[in-house]
Amino acid sequence: MDVILLGIGGMMPMPGRPLASALLRHEGRSTLFDCGEGTQVPLKAGSLGVAHLERIALTHLHADHVTGIPGLLMLVAQGGPRRPLGIVGSDDVCAYVRQTQALLKFHMPYPLAFQSLDPAGGSFRDAHGTLSWQPLEHRVPTVGFRYEEAPRPGAFSVERAEALGIPPGPLRAALQRGESIVVDGRRVASADVVGPPRPGRCVAYVTDTRPCAGAQALLDGCDVAIVEGMFRAHHADQAREKGHLTAVEAATLAAEAGVGRALLTHVSPRYDDAELVLLEREAQAVCPTVELGRPLERIPVPLR
Amino acid sequence: MDVILLGIGGMMPMPGRPLASALLRHEGRSTLFDCGEGTQVPLKAGSLGVAHLERIALTHLHADHVTGIPGLLMLVAQGGPRRPLGIVGSDDVCAYVRQTQALLKFHMPYPLAFQSLDPAGGSFRDAHGTLSWQPLEHRVPTVGFRYEEAPRPGAFSVERAEALGIPPGPLRAALQRGESIVVDGRRVASADVVGPPRPGRCVAYVTDTRPCAGAQALLDGCDVAIVEGMFRAHHADQAREKGHLTAVEAATLAAEAGVGRALLTHVSPRYDDAELVLLEREAQAVCPTVELGRPLERIPVPLR
Repeated sequence: MDVILLGIGGMMPMPGRPLASALLRHEGRSTLFDCGEGTQVPLKAGSLGVAHLERIALTHLHADHVTGIPGLLMLVAQGGPRRPLGIVGSDDVCAYVRQTQALLKFHMPYPLAFQSLDPAGGSFRDAHGTLSWQPLEHRVPTVGFRYEEAPRPGAFSVERAEALGIPPGPLRAALQRGESIVVDGRRVASADVVGPPRPGRCVAYVTDTRPCAGAQALLDGCDVAIVEGMFRAHHADQAREKGHLTAVEAATLAAEAGVGRALLTHVSPRYDDAELVLLEREAQAVCPTVELGRPLERIPVPLR
Repeated sequence: MDVILLGIGGMMPMPGRPLASALLRHEGRSTLFDCGEGTQVPLKAGSLGVAHLERIALTHLHADHVTGIPGLLMLVAQGGPRRPLGIVGSDDVCAYVRQTQALLKFHMPYPLAFQSLDPAGGSFRDAHGTLSWQPLEHRVPTVGFRYEEAPRPGAFSVERAEALGIPPGPLRAALQRGESIVVDGRRVASADVVGPPRPGRCVAYVTDTRPCAGAQALLDGCDVAIVEGMFRAHHADQAREKGHLTAVEAATLAAEAGVGRALLTHVSPRYDDAELVLLEREAQAVCPTVELGRPLERIPVPLR
């Protein structure tokens, strides 16, 4: 499981600073969070293929989060027929994707699987993990996302298995699957040699919001979180007015949630790279595990 | 009068190669030709303001020519209220712009002035020049554009004015304006001291087409032409199949039209920069005044 930021820009794409977007890869499939104008360019610059793209999760219907969709769908189309590509977003986001495709009439050799989101929150679960969402506080209806890996089976104690005289092979496999076995006339339960299920890893994507309960819930205990840090502290009034987070507010949320590693994204185009160093320092004074996101750096999500 | 290419890419934006688009500046106003995904980025990289943007002329409704529109309209909106911005394109292009704005609901503190194009060709004239269009041959209805500066007044011969005893001042100004005057009881006509009107300069923007009469008419006698050179000669079959020009076909059109300087654009993403050198050479073997367009280079259009 890893995360790669494609850009950290907010509001509009700038030279050398693509718009905020992130790719989460897990079990050979990937989820793209947000897709503003130009997101396909860093995808290509990082040689990040789209063959394994499972879904695109979109936070809200503002141009800097969605207008890269037609180009990305056409890039995926280059690969020819394939399994459905998920479009995960609010009703109005899904309508935008449908209608833009209808207006531009581009070739789609694969189906889109629209997954319309209940604005009050919810989740989709599959064998590998759960994608959940919560409402955020922005100028338009907005959600943040959280992906939780399915709990992994407990650790198998080879030492205890040997002490109990269980030979390597099918009997140990049955125990690992949670079954009981009989060896030398004795019944051995799975729990005798297998520990409790281990919690899955967790990644959150939270941008375009004020501090709120939804953001707190999404960030809670995350291993890696991508969090908006749009403004420096002296522009806190603009953050409030426009429904965004300052980097300090993002760091405060990350610290309260016990986030393992928080990556700031969606920074204001008013700041040049030198000023972003100062923005990062303001955040790190509050929470040392916060850093400015670096596009195309691979962020591994370590096993717990 | 000058031209600045913002990108020369065709089909999709690539790292380091923005999509084909060109800015024509004349008499303090500018016209943007085409606006694919990411066009606003080189505009900013070149510090090319949008305050003087008069209109956006769009060749056809393919994503690589129009999906930068929402971002560009929002960039223009940053400047606050202003005079109307022209949107010049076919009915379906204008509908796309209208409906995309309606879907994304972004703030527009200025009006759009839609100028819907007759697919058979036509022109808009104002005090400074004439923007005309002609149908091209592509997979969907497509037009190319030509901008002709209004004819400039004829040259005033100071030598002849002095020989006729006309003093500097209002009498000479009247002659320059085309009026007749009386000096020392003699009638002097404008044509006695002012030469014939001089033709205005001319720029063409021709992309996404096969060689055709429309392309020929648009390029005829141009000082500067931006012309698609999408494919190398050995991919000529694909150019025919997909409705595009090879660089050699572009050079042939430019040579036949007597173009002063032709800039190749809309090159295929399959070619890396090294291969584009070969594409340029193929074109130059046919017409030495053809070159590969270089984004953000200022191309002056010299007075005739």
